[in-house]
Amino acid sequence: MPPPARPPRRYDYIDDGPAIYVDSFATIRAETDLSRVPADAEKVAVRMVHGTGQTDLVDELVIHPGLVTAARGALEAGAPILADANMVASGVTRARLPRDNEVLCLIGDPLVPELARSFGTTRSAAAVSLWGDRLAGAVVAIGNAPTALFHLLELLHDGAPRPAAVIGCPVGFIGAAESKQALAAFGDAHALPYLTVHGRRGGSAMTASALNAIAQDAE
Amino acid sequence: MPPPARPPRRYDYIDDGPAIYVDSFATIRAETDLSRVPADAEKVAVRMVHGTGQTDLVDELVIHPGLVTAARGALEAGAPILADANMVASGVTRARLPRDNEVLCLIGDPLVPELARSFGTTRSAAAVSLWGDRLAGAVVAIGNAPTALFHLLELLHDGAPRPAAVIGCPVGFIGAAESKQALAAFGDAHALPYLTVHGRRGGSAMTASALNAIAQDAE
Repeated sequence: MPPPARPPRRYDYIDDGPAIYVDSFATIRAETDLSRVPADAEKVAVRMVHGTGQTDLVDELVIHPGLVTAARGALEAGAPILADANMVASGVTRARLPRDNEVLCLIGDPLVPELARSFGTTRSAAAVSLWGDRLAGAVVAIGNAPTALFHLLELLHDGAPRPAAVIGCPVGFIGAAESKQALAAFGDAHALPYLTVHGRRGGSAMTASALNAIAQDAE
Repeated sequence: MPPPARPPRRYDYIDDGPAIYVDSFATIRAETDLSRVPADAEKVAVRMVHGTGQTDLVDELVIHPGLVTAARGALEAGAPILADANMVASGVTRARLPRDNEVLCLIGDPLVPELARSFGTTRSAAAVSLWGDRLAGAVVAIGNAPTALFHLLELLHDGAPRPAAVIGCPVGFIGAAESKQALAAFGDAHALPYLTVHGRRGGSAMTASALNAIAQDAE
């Protein structure tokens, strides 16, 4: 097959990748109230707005003041990212990671189905149990399942190794808002840096956006 | 390492996976006005709301009346899904596909960087050019890049093979809304079944949700 040719232009649109980013971020900064976001997390909020197309996301966004320092420091020290969903892992731009960090999602581990049955919980939650000692100093990213976030918090209550930071943005109608309230309460009580979006909104895309902004300061 | 035990329950939440789905879909149906959605696409709209946590998504959702029949029929006949982003491909639940259909994203193809340079466009758009004859009868799913959707439409204007249906939900502030208006205009003018969400909202998660609902009727 010969290499394809570019078809004739029919539409007027910006096709320069870097220019699209620059214009997007400028539009977001012009339209979004970022005053309640910690100064060192401003680019994290901007990238999350970018990934969702919603400037009012910041109304429900809560970023712990220690989040960027803790999570970026962990990645720069080589810590892994532990994700609840393959989509979250897939959304991490590998070129932005400072140490070619491992990005691990264990939902497909062969132990998970039986573990979920024996625990009486979801596969997402069971997969969190398999993180084990890898939790110590890791950056946790939960962007899908409220049960995974609740399970993580129960493991931490029970003495599991402490991660460096938790990005917790599960989405949906059953348990999502409650799981994120629980994360904020736990993080505030135990000085565990966290990022969350209260309410029903969330998901793998905005979680990956947060990770990509945390991974390096350059936009 | 011994198999992990379930930690003590500290929170009151539903941990039964199927029950979470049932309750979620019931909540969505109670709270969402689905009257403008084609009857055979009701479950598609519900699953997209589920994936985003936003009932008002339906206000901007447009589903062509022929979309579900065309796209599901194509998948049942073994057609591939062609995606613009790895996250979209990653979000397709393989167990829901009727024919173990191929799910293809070519953004990582080694030809893409040079093609993008020579075209003067984004890598997402260049990767669309590599779909070639695989476009014929395929289900196209664009959930990230407006430039990919514009490029696809320019290929179709230029005589490229016709897909069975186009799910077009790129997200963002620069070109996204315009690309989706162009898709709707093209689809209406050329009787090409499409699904889109007007405005800035979009993304890989809602695109994957749409695909997962189209793949089979069972919730």
